[in-house]
Amino acid sequence: METRFVYPDDCIAALATPFGESALAVIRTSGAGSIESLAKLTENPESLEKAGGNTMVFGYLKDPDTSEQIDQVMFGIFRAPKSYTGEDSVEMYCHGSIPGIDRILQTLFSHGFRQAQGGEFTLRAFLNGKMDLTQAEAVHELVTARTRTAQHLALGRLKGSIYHQIDGYKKLLIRVQAGVSIQLDYPDDEVEEIPWDFEVLDRIQKGLETLLASYSTGRLFQEGVVVALAGRTNAGKSSLFNLFLKEDRSIVSAIPGTTRDYIEAPLSLKGVPVKLYDTAGLRVIEESIEQEGIRRTTQVMGRSDCILYLVDGTQGLTPEDEEQLATWEQRPLIRVWNKIDAEGVLRTPAGFLPLSATTGEGFSSLEDRLYTEAVKSRGAGLEGTDAVIDSARQKRCLEDTLGALADLQQGIAQRMPLDALALDLQRALGALGEITGEVTREDILDAMFSGFCVGK
Amino acid sequence: METRFVYPDDCIAALATPFGESALAVIRTSGAGSIESLAKLTENPESLEKAGGNTMVFGYLKDPDTSEQIDQVMFGIFRAPKSYTGEDSVEMYCHGSIPGIDRILQTLFSHGFRQAQGGEFTLRAFLNGKMDLTQAEAVHELVTARTRTAQHLALGRLKGSIYHQIDGYKKLLIRVQAGVSIQLDYPDDEVEEIPWDFEVLDRIQKGLETLLASYSTGRLFQEGVVVALAGRTNAGKSSLFNLFLKEDRSIVSAIPGTTRDYIEAPLSLKGVPVKLYDTAGLRVIEESIEQEGIRRTTQVMGRSDCILYLVDGTQGLTPEDEEQLATWEQRPLIRVWNKIDAEGVLRTPAGFLPLSATTGEGFSSLEDRLYTEAVKSRGAGLEGTDAVIDSARQKRCLEDTLGALADLQQGIAQRMPLDALALDLQRALGALGEITGEVTREDILDAMFSGFCVGK
Repeated sequence: METRFVYPDDCIAALATPFGESALAVIRTSGAGSIESLAKLTENPESLEKAGGNTMVFGYLKDPDTSEQIDQVMFGIFRAPKSYTGEDSVEMYCHGSIPGIDRILQTLFSHGFRQAQGGEFTLRAFLNGKMDLTQAEAVHELVTARTRTAQHLALGRLKGSIYHQIDGYKKLLIRVQAGVSIQLDYPDDEVEEIPWDFEVLDRIQKGLETLLASYSTGRLFQEGVVVALAGRTNAGKSSLFNLFLKEDRSIVSAIPGTTRDYIEAPLSLKGVPVKLYDTAGLRVIEESIEQEGIRRTTQVMGRSDCILYLVDGTQGLTPEDEEQLATWEQRPLIRVWNKIDAEGVLRTPAGFLPLSATTGEGFSSLEDRLYTEAVKSRGAGLEGTDAVIDSARQKRCLEDTLGALADLQQGIAQRMPLDALALDLQRALGALGEITGEVTREDILDAMFSGFCVGK
Repeated sequence: METRFVYPDDCIAALATPFGESALAVIRTSGAGSIESLAKLTENPESLEKAGGNTMVFGYLKDPDTSEQIDQVMFGIFRAPKSYTGEDSVEMYCHGSIPGIDRILQTLFSHGFRQAQGGEFTLRAFLNGKMDLTQAEAVHELVTARTRTAQHLALGRLKGSIYHQIDGYKKLLIRVQAGVSIQLDYPDDEVEEIPWDFEVLDRIQKGLETLLASYSTGRLFQEGVVVALAGRTNAGKSSLFNLFLKEDRSIVSAIPGTTRDYIEAPLSLKGVPVKLYDTAGLRVIEESIEQEGIRRTTQVMGRSDCILYLVDGTQGLTPEDEEQLATWEQRPLIRVWNKIDAEGVLRTPAGFLPLSATTGEGFSSLEDRLYTEAVKSRGAGLEGTDAVIDSARQKRCLEDTLGALADLQQGIAQRMPLDALALDLQRALGALGEITGEVTREDILDAMFSGFCVGK
């Protein structure tokens, strides 16, 4: 990763849209001189060179070595500092042709541009002061969000929901520090005790603790939970699977051509991304190798956050059901008594949730129960949170800050010397500054941006 | 498809980039009032309403029903007639978040926009006189091109390579028609014979015939050929497969994350797209069901345009090889004598092409042979063609034109009455006009644009 900082001023380029046949593709470039370098690759260089910022220029991209035209392109011109990266930048809206995209990139790479690394555009935006680190992280979180709620939370962070909170606490801490500094500057003045504003310190600590606690929610909304549908053949697993698909209004439906995988389905459970596995589906796929199917089913059940175990209510509990329920007893598991609409159904036993996967009766109770089991039991949930963190890095910085503040409080209680307390304060401020990236180290930036997708 | 023409003036919207997690996504809209309708969905409507054409405006898209922000977006503003469609149009460059894209589209669809049908943006461009039909067809051909050559040919068509030729021939024919009209207007003047310009008529016919003949090349470059690698186990099929992959400098390599399917690989053979199947790969996948593997291999060989049959030169021809070669004798087949670098290799028999898939010796001869077998034998090739058609519709129109011109020539020879000859001329002109879309019918447009991808 050492190249990341070697040439901060060179021109970078990357495909910013998925690589595939489509109406349009966007190729993004950035760097001082990028507009001029790209102009040389067009039929009419002046039209780009003279274009104002935030304008679009229609033209043809050509290979300067052969003068052959490569594509008809709309060029989006951005002039520093009014661009995503803060540098001169050109975005090319070109045809989504696979050989076309390839050829454009190859031409760029042999004429003054290099392939951007993952997250490099956003890194430059950060380095050029266009955003703080919490916003930079939010860019990646926004793109990879799997439900509307997760996307909405990330958008909030991108707009600065974390940054503004941290910044507020930092200002309060700086005020506290200022008071201490005055005391340190006049050590000869005999002051019995400096007037610590415990109310402010408490407010900061409580606020940061709330933010820290939001991490489990943040991770949950970003990573999601795995739910496995299990039970004997004909217990109604596939019906319930389809019911989940049908009831989930948040999953993508508007885009033609979206295909669904009928073994694993992405759902949204009150905004929490859920991967729902139909273990029947796992078995069907592998019907020729029954052992392998059973192994996979066990694997999926083992790593799920919650198991929905279906029993056919018209058949009642079989020895096989009892064995399975005993096996998975230690894991979060919801017992479902299915087919309550069917004739001759047996009475729902205690501990079972009655359901008809056919009519949908009992489904909303099942959803509530699943939310409790898979989300609330993990101390997560959206209630009363307006800013949620979703970054292990931010979590660590918050822990460091809170650790320093705890040391400070303890030091005050133990009447430690003022210069020792001042160091605790400094440490707390340093850790807070790391969250937003005021104070930062190259290795942290490297680790952070290397997980980004290319083109961001 | 009847809705295609029902509301030519309403606002349409579609995702124009592939649907997937990525840095950016482009959502395209078009229609009178689209800028104003979109402005209402933003936090700062004036910034869009007052924006000039070909400019970019940064802003937030919101759901007007809940006032919730949906995404941070760069809006590309295009004002009629200076837009792709010729109508007012907004392109949104937004985050490539799956739930985000879904939510934006849903918001658009419930606030004045409807989902664009496949090709509807290009259809509007045609209806508004931004391009002729050959250029409209080229848009789709460009996007779906599989090699650089195919993409280059389509770009030529998009720029009007077909249109200009057709237009030239049309002008010549109109001149001929004018001469005839004068004669018809003055029927009483006794003129022995009108001075037909046979040279011009011949030039038109030859030109159109060349264009018509280019269709097989056009189809070949767009559709490509299927090549199957066959032979006994250990004949070296996988080595040759990998050699093809390695030698093919045109296949996509620059984009990180491109995965290769090792059973079927897309290659470019001098610009012709090739799907290369390794039948060994087909067998490996299905190893548990050997019969199925053999069935699939036979299927692939049966529908291939050329079979490369490898024989292990150190083993010589086995009865199995001879049986296979006899079976596929009627199909284009290249016999390859592999492992010529190995110790103890037998002398290459007549009719076999010597190769070492390990060292690459003989590979370029194999490529030449494959090109001859799969491309030239079909009467195709790029030699001496600057405009190549790739549209069954254009082919049909050319045939109709040529048919009418043949009737005309015959009529002249048979000294048919002038008004009958005028009808032939009119027919030829009509068919030519259909190619570019001057003369057209709704059902033809429907059939044409329904094959397009959404967002184009």
